[in-house]
Amino acid sequence: MRYLLLSLAAFTCLAADDGPKFTDDGRLLKPENYREWVWLSSGLGMSYGPATPSDAASNPPFDNVFVSPSAYREFLRTGTWPDQTIFVLEVRRSQSKGSINQGGHFQGEMIAIEAELKNKKWMFYGFEGSATSAKPLPTTAACYSCHAQHGAVDNTFVQFYPTLIEVARQKGTFRERS
Amino acid sequence: MRYLLLSLAAFTCLAADDGPKFTDDGRLLKPENYREWVWLSSGLGMSYGPATPSDAASNPPFDNVFVSPSAYREFLRTGTWPDQTIFVLEVRRSQSKGSINQGGHFQGEMIAIEAELKNKKWMFYGFEGSATSAKPLPTTAACYSCHAQHGAVDNTFVQFYPTLIEVARQKGTFRERS
Repeated sequence: MRYLLLSLAAFTCLAADDGPKFTDDGRLLKPENYREWVWLSSGLGMSYGPATPSDAASNPPFDNVFVSPSAYREFLRTGTWPDQTIFVLEVRRSQSKGSINQGGHFQGEMIAIEAELKNKKWMFYGFEGSATSAKPLPTTAACYSCHAQHGAVDNTFVQFYPTLIEVARQKGTFRERS
Repeated sequence: MRYLLLSLAAFTCLAADDGPKFTDDGRLLKPENYREWVWLSSGLGMSYGPATPSDAASNPPFDNVFVSPSAYREFLRTGTWPDQTIFVLEVRRSQSKGSINQGGHFQGEMIAIEAELKNKKWMFYGFEGSATSAKPLPTTAACYSCHAQHGAVDNTFVQFYPTLIEVARQKGTFRERS
């Protein structure tokens, strides 16, 4: 029994279990626990992804970027993203007045949630409303060309993830992008 | 041998190992892997903690809040923070111009790192410069009274953590704070 429990525990932990999951008709399932994944950074009012308006508004949105933990650990080791890497981009409203806060911006309700998956090639997904799955965005969507042209490391905006910039430079995978 | 490996794996995973660690003279060690802990939210230019200036500057700092994973899971279950909960507050410079970004703000270098530990009672720590350990801030520091008076849940600013507000409300632990 003890052996069985240990085996189960070991299996649960050894299996990363943070790779992509799909519906029978090939739609990417929204990762249920991405909020427990590794957070890379947040920006305010950045022009990042099709769901983000400009920061002209007084309360521009926050962009929060998460990545699957097993991919993160591989990036620390190699400076590259392994196949099956999943990024989640969460866009939230910002607020300025609330509780004791009278200035600056804090995060509010969700506006949009998107995903970038490396499945041989990089694919982008937008989960509309409360959708729990999404089909890939058409390759004509702006995210494909923008990530390919401007991502500092392999289609991803590592230049905006402060703790990963130095990792990529040390591994020789960082490309200075305009 | 297989049994040994499974046992080790099981132990590694079953042990949360994200509680506080101290030096021999009682200083809190800065959690080495807090960037892999559960991120709760980020704000820009908020008046949050003694290390954060106002948002008067054109590039106000970001505040990033992380919590130990085992404490996070307990909060989801109960709406309260267990003893040995550790919060890490990371303060980073913001930048507006860089790479393709021409507006809004993205995150730059670290300005300060602080911790809040529930060790029977809540204690606050500031890791100065590249210090890897810190002694508790004096209880006269502003953080103690501000968290006690304004924290929505047990000395913590859950009102600024969008995914935890509803959890606390459902568990009946959320206090509306001015």
